[in-house]
Amino acid sequence: MTQGPALNPADPEGAIAAAAKSYSNWGRWGDDDRLGTLNFLDAAKRREGAALVRRGVSFSLAQSFDMDGPQKGWRRRTNPVHTMLDTGTDAALGNQGFPHGIGGADDVIAMPLQCSTQWDGLGHIFDHGFAWNGRRADKVVTSDGDLVTGIEHMAPHVAGRGVLLDVGRVVGEDGELPDGFAVTEEHLTATARAHGVTVGRGDIVVVRTGQLARVRRTGWGDYAGGPAPGLSFTTAGWLHRTEIAAIATDTWGFEVRPNEFEHAFQPLHQIAIPNMGLLIGEMWDLDALAEDCAADGQYAFWLTAAPLPITGAVGSPINPVAVK
Amino acid sequence: MTQGPALNPADPEGAIAAAAKSYSNWGRWGDDDRLGTLNFLDAAKRREGAALVRRGVSFSLAQSFDMDGPQKGWRRRTNPVHTMLDTGTDAALGNQGFPHGIGGADDVIAMPLQCSTQWDGLGHIFDHGFAWNGRRADKVVTSDGDLVTGIEHMAPHVAGRGVLLDVGRVVGEDGELPDGFAVTEEHLTATARAHGVTVGRGDIVVVRTGQLARVRRTGWGDYAGGPAPGLSFTTAGWLHRTEIAAIATDTWGFEVRPNEFEHAFQPLHQIAIPNMGLLIGEMWDLDALAEDCAADGQYAFWLTAAPLPITGAVGSPINPVAVK
Amino acid sequence: MTQGPALNPADPEGAIAAAAKSYSNWGRWGDDDRLGTLNFLDAAKRREGAALVRRGVSFSLAQSFDMDGPQKGWRRRTNPVHTMLDTGTDAALGNQGFPHGIGGADDVIAMPLQCSTQWDGLGHIFDHGFAWNGRRADKVVTSDGDLVTGIEHMAPHVAGRGVLLDVGRVVGEDGELPDGFAVTEEHLTATARAHGVTVGRGDIVVVRTGQLARVRRTGWGDYAGGPAPGLSFTTAGWLHRTEIAAIATDTWGFEVRPNEFEHAFQPLHQIAIPNMGLLIGEMWDLDALAEDCAADGQYAFWLTAAPLPITGAVGSPINPVAVK
Amino acid sequence: MTQGPALNPADPEGAIAAAAKSYSNWGRWGDDDRLGTLNFLDAAKRREGAALVRRGVSFSLAQSFDMDGPQKGWRRRTNPVHTMLDTGTDAALGNQGFPHGIGGADDVIAMPLQCSTQWDGLGHIFDHGFAWNGRRADKVVTSDGDLVTGIEHMAPHVAGRGVLLDVGRVVGEDGELPDGFAVTEEHLTATARAHGVTVGRGDIVVVRTGQLARVRRTGWGDYAGGPAPGLSFTTAGWLHRTEIAAIATDTWGFEVRPNEFEHAFQPLHQIAIPNMGLLIGEMWDLDALAEDCAADGQYAFWLTAAPLPITGAVGSPINPVAVK
Repeated sequence: MTQGPALNPADPEGAIAAAAKSYSNWGRWGDDDRLGTLNFLDAAKRREGAALVRRGVSFSLAQSFDMDGPQKGWRRRTNPVHTMLDTGTDAALGNQGFPHGIGGADDVIAMPLQCSTQWDGLGHIFDHGFAWNGRRADKVVTSDGDLVTGIEHMAPHVAGRGVLLDVGRVVGEDGELPDGFAVTEEHLTATARAHGVTVGRGDIVVVRTGQLARVRRTGWGDYAGGPAPGLSFTTAGWLHRTEIAAIATDTWGFEVRPNEFEHAFQPLHQIAIPNMGLLIGEMWDLDALAEDCAADGQYAFWLTAAPLPITGAVGSPINPVAVK
Repeated sequence: MTQGPALNPADPEGAIAAAAKSYSNWGRWGDDDRLGTLNFLDAAKRREGAALVRRGVSFSLAQSFDMDGPQKGWRRRTNPVHTMLDTGTDAALGNQGFPHGIGGADDVIAMPLQCSTQWDGLGHIFDHGFAWNGRRADKVVTSDGDLVTGIEHMAPHVAGRGVLLDVGRVVGEDGELPDGFAVTEEHLTATARAHGVTVGRGDIVVVRTGQLARVRRTGWGDYAGGPAPGLSFTTAGWLHRTEIAAIATDTWGFEVRPNEFEHAFQPLHQIAIPNMGLLIGEMWDLDALAEDCAADGQYAFWLTAAPLPITGAVGSPINPVAVK
Repeated sequence: MTQGPALNPADPEGAIAAAAKSYSNWGRWGDDDRLGTLNFLDAAKRREGAALVRRGVSFSLAQSFDMDGPQKGWRRRTNPVHTMLDTGTDAALGNQGFPHGIGGADDVIAMPLQCSTQWDGLGHIFDHGFAWNGRRADKVVTSDGDLVTGIEHMAPHVAGRGVLLDVGRVVGEDGELPDGFAVTEEHLTATARAHGVTVGRGDIVVVRTGQLARVRRTGWGDYAGGPAPGLSFTTAGWLHRTEIAAIATDTWGFEVRPNEFEHAFQPLHQIAIPNMGLLIGEMWDLDALAEDCAADGQYAFWLTAAPLPITGAVGSPINPVAVK
Repeated sequence: MTQGPALNPADPEGAIAAAAKSYSNWGRWGDDDRLGTLNFLDAAKRREGAALVRRGVSFSLAQSFDMDGPQKGWRRRTNPVHTMLDTGTDAALGNQGFPHGIGGADDVIAMPLQCSTQWDGLGHIFDHGFAWNGRRADKVVTSDGDLVTGIEHMAPHVAGRGVLLDVGRVVGEDGELPDGFAVTEEHLTATARAHGVTVGRGDIVVVRTGQLARVRRTGWGDYAGGPAPGLSFTTAGWLHRTEIAAIATDTWGFEVRPNEFEHAFQPLHQIAIPNMGLLIGEMWDLDALAEDCAADGQYAFWLTAAPLPITGAVGSPINPVAVK
């Protein structure tokens, strides 16, 4: 088994540079690529995924989108504000001016695209001024949005074979990993082995840490950016080698927090998104699906997690739906 | 074949009252129901749908979400406004203050929930002050949103067998129905027959009129609310009798416009949503899928069209994904 | 001196009913009135106010409008979210496509109208289903906004003689009243006497409690809705008798909190706005002005506090400017 | 009389460079300046302005803020979207859960800061990558807003002597200048002479072209960015020499459109804002004030036009109030 680079906590720059070199996919799908590892998710993988629909049960893997969310304003990320343009009270009181007794309600939303269950787009993170596939960040994402790799390009693609790795259940206590717990390649492979499931090229992997279940009991606290279980920086090699199409967790930030370097901020993102072109999902709600998988022993399923094709977006709210 | 009520253009009230009586599903799924005809979409239907994935090709049925959309402000419905919180230009210029060369982009959106490709929630339309299942509209949808049938309740359900009825191709000229063309039950059944496809209980039916293809050539014009092809009021009986789970079109308003009564506004909505509990989709982009169906002759497919679980919403933007 | 009704803490309903009866201005300015006590602010008062400009120094009485504000989401009131449509980084990098070296920056805001320094409009509060001047609340403020007394009607009017009552300085310790301190008519008149200033018909009175100065030191805490010094319910008579045009405080909610009844919510609002038609301002920053008034002994000044004429709004963000 | 540079329509770059050199105020108020020509508006000017309040009548110079505005989406500038958080219908129907019969309405807004009557902040326009006072644009206005000259710094200052130059009335026909009419220094001085008013250091000058009156009759058309009367590029010298504090018009863009060069975009902005530090207002409604000035012959008045102190904003919606 190939390990990722040994970590020197004092040298994130060195570790990031080494990993970027080892795990880059730049150029792998041509100069014009806008999809990154979604290229791994092909028609054969979709046929394989669809064959996993056996019982016909479906699960939403989304948290709710409302003011009761975890956001506290970090980098102006707020919870969604949903307001009404028309209501049933107005309709009932005859205030709407429509004919023949018809009434209507209508609504608007204002929200950060990454306020709740979401995909990070390929334009979300840069490495030393470079975006996915080696493009200059300032030519890719301007105030007009992501001009090259906007999430709209992924619109038809994110449907395929999903695999749940319930590391919280296999490795944790009472189904949960503690905050600050770094999930390593060993944890991931041990969990897959325990589940009797394989992870391979083109899969969409969803990793349950149990943190969301915990904050449901205890209150949001610092869910949005504070200490959390999550993937170790050392999993970069596994993420690259397995050739998965996408990966998502039930945490705010995908990777372990505090990060594994002394002065660092989301170093695994810096490898995974701009260098690897990997689609990363965050704040997924995996608890109902995990219960079902534990009950029937089937950890692979059909998964659709279609981003809204918001032109130029570097992320998208989603409602992933798993069907078994 | 049972027809809908004969239309007296001068009497929308009478026609609506008669149809509401004939086609009501109030109480059919109990007093507490929040799903309406989505109840028809069961596990067996999902198994049937998943079996339609033969080639593994996928299609997004969403229009783009951006300022170049059709909205002109009717009832304060605007096009989406997408703005950046952080950009690649700032990252490239070293303005972000992050360590080890990581940079980021982030974004927000403000949009009506029905500005582009969308589902109407069950709280979207009322009939004489009553909402789905006979509840008082003013107790269901207040300024706080839909307190009972918010679209979040549909989150895990909208995945199943999709059927395309390309009425534009079968009945129209050059693949398009003219504005003001009322699609009747006969058109729907003739189209299904021509396609060699059946429509039945629990299906998600998508009806292509060709209007979107036309405005793509000619400019939006009055796509958002003006004259359009669409379902005749007389299809209410077919919508009820077939026990479909949901139906969507490539037009702004699902039903034919101008409406078929002298002084009327969306009378079929008034039957379909509050009385029947039918899930209605609008502004879907069916053109790429329709091309493929015409090519391979397969008009049924696996379809996931998961609403964002926005608490209390009466509609949701969606990116429906069809897989064949 | 006429006192307000004696308070029975167990009977807010009774106290409110009595005060509503005693202090109502319904009909005082005709059936069509949209201005309430702003009618007291006439041309003579403006001449009197302008004559107070002696030194020519000006003070902004506004707090800042940004994410660092006090709002915590109560009734979906958030802090303002300000985002850029165009930036100097894009301009500097040549991303904007303009000729001859011109570049630009542009921005948008999403905010509750009462998130920071603001006026309450006359449609902001109702008494038993009735709005200002005896109109039915449901016919005045619908989902389309305030159809009758929208704050746009006040646009040209709010400029006149301002009077600062620095109760914090006169009555408090170190310039501040403690949270929960009820400011009575005696406190107001004693403060005016100490300042050597009179309060009369048409004045805009600004009352400084010192709470804002305190939370500046200690952090926002529960500034937005928690315990605070403020006007006693018993000042209703004084507010009515003095015939002031408007009143504002440096607190979130104008009146003392917790309110002076056992189970109550902002009972003085219920008298002042729908019954008296009084313009109420909240979250004003009076500290710099108060320093100056203490230094020169002049507590009256010219004051302009013009609401944005947002059609149908029940409140408006403002930047009040005092000139002495 | 010193004229501005002679215009070669083929050479905007040359004309701009020459004017920038001649009329720069960089360094005039020190390296740290954030106010530009507002420095001219001093205490003496405020005393002079306040003395102009003779009758005590007040005028709002703001257009309304609502969906019926002129914006068509250029650079994502939309009209304001005002929505309700709570309404009188909900209050009347007892849906709000408050005690003792109190009810409330509350609202939010989403709007570009320059959608209606507004000030351009000093960070709004750049000249070849430089902002006001010679600072690098990319260090002044990032995605976090204007970090140096945000409009909040102007909060207490914009109150002083206003002067109306009703060029539409003096020079135009029926009170209106046609679209494309370039207002020159001669027009400005002739208008002042006709009014019997002087323009001098520290004044806030408001120029009425009559275009707003015209589009009120004819519909918005291309008011937001199309052909319009406005200041000639050649007025740059006058703007500089008069040492006015600010200037505003009743048009979308302050300067004449089409611009006076073959391939150009708002060249006078490029001189006035980054080089001169001049505060520019747009979309003011001067018609009611102009009627009054014509009637009483007094074209100077007290004017308060206080921007909302939105931290880091490059513009602000305003409600300017003139008092005579």
